[in-house]
Amino acid sequence: MKTPKPRLAIIGFGAFGQLAARHLRDHARICVSDPVSRADDLPQVGLAEAARADVILLAVPLSCLEQVLTEIAPHLRPGAVVIDVTSVKLRPAELMQALLPDHVGIIATHPLFGPESARDGIAGHRLAWCPLRGGEHRRLAAFLRWLGLKVLTTTPDQHDAEMAMVQGLTHLISRSLGALGPMPTRLATASFQHLIEAARMVQADSPELLRTILCENPHAEPVRRRFLDAAAAVTG
Amino acid sequence: MKTPKPRLAIIGFGAFGQLAARHLRDHARICVSDPVSRADDLPQVGLAEAARADVILLAVPLSCLEQVLTEIAPHLRPGAVVIDVTSVKLRPAELMQALLPDHVGIIATHPLFGPESARDGIAGHRLAWCPLRGGEHRRLAAFLRWLGLKVLTTTPDQHDAEMAMVQGLTHLISRSLGALGPMPTRLATASFQHLIEAARMVQADSPELLRTILCENPHAEPVRRRFLDAAAAVTG
Repeated sequence: MKTPKPRLAIIGFGAFGQLAARHLRDHARICVSDPVSRADDLPQVGLAEAARADVILLAVPLSCLEQVLTEIAPHLRPGAVVIDVTSVKLRPAELMQALLPDHVGIIATHPLFGPESARDGIAGHRLAWCPLRGGEHRRLAAFLRWLGLKVLTTTPDQHDAEMAMVQGLTHLISRSLGALGPMPTRLATASFQHLIEAARMVQADSPELLRTILCENPHAEPVRRRFLDAAAAVTG
Repeated sequence: MKTPKPRLAIIGFGAFGQLAARHLRDHARICVSDPVSRADDLPQVGLAEAARADVILLAVPLSCLEQVLTEIAPHLRPGAVVIDVTSVKLRPAELMQALLPDHVGIIATHPLFGPESARDGIAGHRLAWCPLRGGEHRRLAAFLRWLGLKVLTTTPDQHDAEMAMVQGLTHLISRSLGALGPMPTRLATASFQHLIEAARMVQADSPELLRTILCENPHAEPVRRRFLDAAAAVTG
């Protein structure tokens, strides 16, 4: 007799929740909980029922995380694992550790890919991985590596420090270039084309994500300040 | 009887002068004039003799241009064509028109490539092209197109306006990122990698080139100011 597939609840069925469902549907019995978005062919459940799954994937914006954690906490089963996927890690880690019962595992993660970059598959893409509580993270990391992901273990603080550079600077520069209006294309150099491509890739990101990256990462403001000071100091 | 190949004097035998010599040696009788760099197998001449060629390519830094123009001016033959390749165009155009005799053609150009980007050949690369005096530019543009270059006709002012964005922003951002110290690589996103690649491609450019791009382009300072204001205004 085969072991039954684990039950996976995806809470928040936006762009990332849908991407996760596509790649995990052959490996888990998935249910979805979202007040607005519906999955055509997956069971739609309330938060209390979603909380009774084996693995609970929180694919909600950071601004909703505290409320969702409060609502699911009383319903989580011993041994369940709760995983978030927001773009910063210190604040979600703090919330999950404060609001979730001791009998569940907690993993704070940040997939460094999305529907656009993983259009041709998730193999080779990277996932920042911060195991916070429980031992189930080893088996789950092995599963994700088997899917082809590069699972990079780190801490919430180290993650946010690196991402203050990686995402903070990319978004800061992208928004600043966007504010200058249309960019020249006829005389564009190869290096300028890389700059424009960097800006293009993140310009469709939501205001909510921009706010998370710039305001909810405690390392972001010092990096932003250093970049602005450096830019002001550049002279020929 | 074949028409003899034109005589081409390359004044300034730095990275770009050497690149030009490699790609033009089969098509012209080349001589080189440079106070320091020597060409192993090309005749080395003084400025006065270089000025007597059919085509004179000025591959010197902008800071030397006025002096070189003053020295070659009395020796230029009627019908000769003088071409510069500096990274801005208003200032060199002004100098060439003021200092060169009426009996020579003048073309201000800016090759949007260099030894690194044209490592595998010049075909497909772009050249900003500002004919300023004389009619010989049509035949020369046709020759360069035959070599595979994209010859983009523009004016010095239009060139400098576009380049204030293209080169001004690339160098400003590159230098600012450089000032922040080592960039994270483990958690780098695809968009951040484009940013880092843009910065890497120009980081070896000389201080002289940086000064030219930021200080000798009258459009550069307003663009720099607008970028800094936009960056300061980005909030989550």
